[in-house]
This record gives sequence, structure tokens and C-alpha cells, in this order.
Amino acid sequence: VLLGSPYLFQIMYSQFLSVVGFILTYNLIPPFAEKLKARGLFGKDLNKPGKDVPVPEALGIIPGTVFLVCVILSQFMFSSDAVKLLEYNAGLLSICFMILLGFVDDVIDLAWRYKLMLPTFASLPLLIAYRGSTSILIPKWIASLMSIPHLINLGYFYHLYMGLLAIFCTNSINILAGVNGLEVGQSVVITVATILHNLLELFWSVEDGTADDNPFASMHLFSLLISFPFLACSLGLLCHNWYPSRVFVGDTFTYFAGMFFAVAGILGHFNKTLLLLFIPQLLNTILSLPQLLGVIPCPRHRIPRCNPNTGLLEPTPNLTLLNFTLRLFGPMTEKRLVQILLLFQVLCCAGGLVIRHYSSLMFFFV
Amino acid sequence: VLLGSPYLFQIMYSQFLSVVGFILTYNLIPPFAEKLKARGLFGKDLNKPGKDVPVPEALGIIPGTVFLVCVILSQFMFSSDAVKLLEYNAGLLSICFMILLGFVDDVIDLAWRYKLMLPTFASLPLLIAYRGSTSILIPKWIASLMSIPHLINLGYFYHLYMGLLAIFCTNSINILAGVNGLEVGQSVVITVATILHNLLELFWSVEDGTADDNPFASMHLFSLLISFPFLACSLGLLCHNWYPSRVFVGDTFTYFAGMFFAVAGILGHFNKTLLLLFIPQLLNTILSLPQLLGVIPCPRHRIPRCNPNTGLLEPTPNLTLLNFTLRLFGPMTEKRLVQILLLFQVLCCAGGLVIRHYSSLMFFFV
Ligand SMILES: [Mg+2]
Ligand SMILES: [Mg+2]
Repeated sequence: VLLGSPYLFQIMYSQFLSVVGFILTYNLIPPFAEKLKARGLFGKDLNKPGKDVPVPEALGIIPGTVFLVCVILSQFMFSSDAVKLLEYNAGLLSICFMILLGFVDDVIDLAWRYKLMLPTFASLPLLIAYRGSTSILIPKWIASLMSIPHLINLGYFYHLYMGLLAIFCTNSINILAGVNGLEVGQSVVITVATILHNLLELFWSVEDGTADDNPFASMHLFSLLISFPFLACSLGLLCHNWYPSRVFVGDTFTYFAGMFFAVAGILGHFNKTLLLLFIPQLLNTILSLPQLLGVIPCPRHRIPRCNPNTGLLEPTPNLTLLNFTLRLFGPMTEKRLVQILLLFQVLCCAGGLVIRHYSSLMFFFV
Repeated sequence: VLLGSPYLFQIMYSQFLSVVGFILTYNLIPPFAEKLKARGLFGKDLNKPGKDVPVPEALGIIPGTVFLVCVILSQFMFSSDAVKLLEYNAGLLSICFMILLGFVDDVIDLAWRYKLMLPTFASLPLLIAYRGSTSILIPKWIASLMSIPHLINLGYFYHLYMGLLAIFCTNSINILAGVNGLEVGQSVVITVATILHNLLELFWSVEDGTADDNPFASMHLFSLLISFPFLACSLGLLCHNWYPSRVFVGDTFTYFAGMFFAVAGILGHFNKTLLLLFIPQLLNTILSLPQLLGVIPCPRHRIPRCNPNTGLLEPTPNLTLLNFTLRLFGPMTEKRLVQILLLFQVLCCAGGLVIRHYSSLMFFFV
């Protein structure tokens, strides 16, 4: 259906840029990894006892920069529409600022107060530029139960909610980490779900014939056009970061990915759906809260411990989704743990998409 | 006159933010200098033989980040005007991307091909978002001499011109360097001239009573509102970078400053005046061209040589404004050389402003 739609050209241009972005990311990472390692930016892989090879850090800077170049080159497509271009530029400014902060954090570890404060400033351009609705739909049964209106205009509280969402996305990906390939893997899965969600929404609106005057359609298109290059650049990184990791991604990548999802969700106007896709991150954050808030002591690293005799990962008392998984299924190899967590991510995303599109899917297939 | 003008509140808010920005920059530099030095980001001061103290590098990241926070907080002032906000965000995106590239360049020296290519991408958001006139005024006598119209619409060539201007600003500040305090010093002088120019323009338009419907007035206001925080953050850095330098500014600062001037000039719509303020940089670039283009061999460093016996700087055969100055006035101390070059910058800027405002000044004072 999308073949004959007015979006075809824009989607194809974005996909072409993304392919170039993937090739660039994939090929630039090895030489830059050497340079970063030479500069002292490397870490030890804590899950591989006996293997003391330094692994280059902060490689998220490559997909980050390539992504920025790709999306800047996409701008030509809406250069005539000031409002769209505004949201686009504001979103990119937020992402770019976050990449900068992440890289600075990787080079000189920032104190916690900066880590918490700076993402707030980084998300401001996005919030100020936001021109969409500030209303939320309350599910009908809750609305009637509490006898409140179905559609509530939150006004500035909506902006507060968006700001908190941006901070949640940025930090929740950063703390669901610690085994090879997990940061990038979860981001890739969520991006695929984001792309599917946007394509489905565009599909419904083209079917309806409302595409031309439906503001939501252009929002989903927008979200799509930044999701393709993000997926491509993340895949380029994942090739080198997958178990056993030849490079680490650093806070540069996790901050970049988190702000990207916030931008895609807010400007694509599907931030409730986004939370459905973030269920593993949400669980991990809730599990971690007692340690993050300092109720229970929080060590520098909270990852599982590798038993040098069996080569299997075993849980530590730290409250994370990784340790919880190991308690549930018993000790396992690092690779298996990543696979299980990514499978859980896939199931959550699939479930989220089904819940979101249930009624539309029913309408089509029943 | 500006006291009663509608701009007063915006200017005062911007100045308040700038004062905070100066204090932050000034106080954050010492602790971050230590962190950067510990990370291996330091250089030797080549003009101080016998003094082998490592000087922390890349401190431009502090004024850069503080500047971004200040200008993001300024956004609230035009949050209702989408077109203005668009130009603002696009300009900030260009600046932010350039700071990121500069810092990456300082951490891992980038190859020349990236150094040349990436500023081009960084300036694209600015060019795409530009909503102003694409016409230039030709001085009347040239126009009548060549029998061409007085006002020429360059169309897309104007965008090309702006792109080249951004690349020129970025690189010309970067190569007029090599003695303590020169990079930041020249930027401070040019910024003061920029602020005076914008204030004069605003002053004329308030006098005329055309302020409210004069699109140029709002452009100059815009330029003013980013110039105050830039001046403040640069001054905060200059306090530590002035002779004898306790910190070096790195490509982070020169790229940041260059793109800032391009944004201020383009969105403030005074890019011809800007070139008048850049006369020292223009001279240095023209002098350097034979070496930059590879006609004459170009060593890694082209700075003057310090004679360890006299402690004075002596010219090297490299074609730079620094060596030219030393040839003209004879060997001198590093401090004196910086003072002479900055005095030359002040004279050029003052001359540029007088040329630009000659007719208006005549009108007022004669
Ligand atoms: Mg991390
Ligand atoms: Mg330099």
C-alpha cells in the first residue's frame, strides 16, 4: 500500500542514506578503535577472567557522528516547512548535545551531579520546540471509573512528563548493561519495533485515505526518517560489539540511544507506546531503584560475577535484571544471558505492538 | 534609547545568563583541567624553553558546554515564534556539532580529510534553516561601473557563499594561533565588535521608529542574544589562557568560536560586516595559502621559534601573520607579540565598524 503513497520517495531516500551510514559506521570503527585505545580510552572485559586484552571504549562516537551526518542530509526533504524543520532541528540538537556529553563523560568521568543535570538541559530544545498536542487519552474504562474526561489536556505538565521521559530513556538504557552487546542489542530491537509501529500507523492512515491531512501521519513519517539511520548505525556498531566484544560502546552510545528514543517517541507522538517497548528497561530501573536511591549500598559495578572454573556467569546480590535472570534460570554463559535478555526484549516489543495495534489488526484480519 | 525599547527585557535576561555563564566557566576550568591532564590531554608550551610543565589541552569544552546551556535557556524568549526558533535551533545545532567535532579532534587527532569535510556537514543545518534574503547589495560605484543592478539576488549561490563563510571562519581562527591567549583574545575582540555593531543597528532602528516591523532589527537582537553568552564564556576561558597559559584551548574552542561567528553573522544578516572584522584572519589565511595548498612544504607547527638565550621569539620561514609581525618589528617577548596582534585586531574591528556605520554616524553627529 505504501508503494503508491506520497511517502515513498522520502522513505527510499532515508533508506539509501541509512545503507551508506551502515557501511561508514562498520568500516570506520576499527581504525578509530585503535586511535581511542592509543589515547587510553579502553576498558577490561570484566566477564572474561584470564583474558586481559584491553578493549577500546567510547566507540558510540562513530555511529553518533555518522547518524548526525545522515539526518542532517535528510533535512533537504522538509526544507520548505518551517515548523517541521524546527522540530527536526530541535530534536537533533538534543541528540547532538547528548552525544557530546556522553563522549565527554567517557573521556573524563563526570560527577553524578553533572550526569543528572545535563540531560535535563539537553532535552530542553526538544520540549520548547514541541508543537504537538499536550493532551493524553485515558483508556475509557479508567475514565468512566474515575468519572474524568476521556481526553485530558495536561498543558505544561505534559512538557514535564516529556522531560522526565527523556531522562528515563537516557538513563534506563545506560543501566541495563554490563554484558557484551546488550546496550546496542536492546537499542536495535526497540528501533525495529519503533519502525514497525510507524509503518503500521502510516499504513492505516494511507488505507483510511486520511494521510494527506492527518497530522499524525507526518509525525510518524518524521519518526521513521530518523529511525532508519539510527538502526543502520547501531547495526554497524553491533557487528563489532557483539559477543565477544572487540569494542565497547561507552556512555556516548547509551546517552545517544536514549535521547534518540525520546526524540522519536515525542516528535512521533507515540510516547505511551514507547513505554510499552521499554518494559525491560522499566523493570530494570524499578529493580535498581533501592540501590540508585542509596537505600541499599551501590558498588561501582553491579554486573554478574564470572566463575573462572566453570566460565559461567553467576548472580551477585545487586538488584538488576541481569542478576534476576541468572537467579531465575541458573548460571549460564555470557552469550546465552545476552540472548535471553534480547529475546525478552523482542517479546516485550512484539507484545507492545500487538496491544497497541490490536483493534486495527482485528479490523483487518477478522 | 534602548532603555525604553521592547528589547530591554530580553537583553537583560541574556546578560544575567551571561554573568552566570562567566562564573561557571571560570570556576569549572581548573578542576576539569586536572581531569583532562590526567587523561593524557596535555601539551608542551613550545615557546617556553626550559619549562617542561605539561599544560592541559582542549579546555574549550567548558565554555562550549556552558555556552550551549546558556543559549538553550535563552530559547524560552522566542518559544512562540516557530521561524525564529527554527533559525535559533539550527544555529545551535551547527555550533554543537562543531564543538563535538573539535573535542573528538583534540582527543584523537582527526585526519585532514575529516577536518575539511565535517565542518561542511556541520554548517548545513544553518544553511537549510536560513529564511532571510539571498540578495546582496553591491556598492553603488561598482554597480554603475560594471553596469549591473545595485541589488543582486544570488539564490542558491548565496547559500554556497554562506557555507564557504562558515568554513572560512572555522579554519581561519584555528590557524591564527600559536602564542598564549591569541585564539581566545581575537575571539573576544571580534565578539565585542559584533555586540557593538548589533547594538548600533538596534539603536538606529529604535531611533527610526522602525523597530517593530523591521526584520533586520530582530535579526540583530538574535545575534546579540547569542553574543553575550559567547563573550562571557570566552572571557572565563581567557582568564586561564592568558600569558602565561595555565590551560590550552584546543581545536574545541577554535571550531566552536569559528562556527559561532558564522552563525552570528549569517542569522544576524551582517556577513559582509563580519568579513571586515575578520581582516587579520583574512590576511593570515592569504599569507598561509601557499603552505596550506602544498605549494611550499608545510611543517606540523608553523609558530615562531623562541631563542633560549634572549627569551625572545624570532620569526621562522613559515608564512604566517605571527612571523610577518616579528619580521616587521624584530624579535620580542611572547606577551608583547600577543598584545601587538590583539591591538591590530582591535584597530581592524574599530575601522570596520566605522566604515560600516560611517553614514549613520555622520547623520547623528554632524
Ligand atoms: Mg555506561
Ligand atoms: Mg588548533
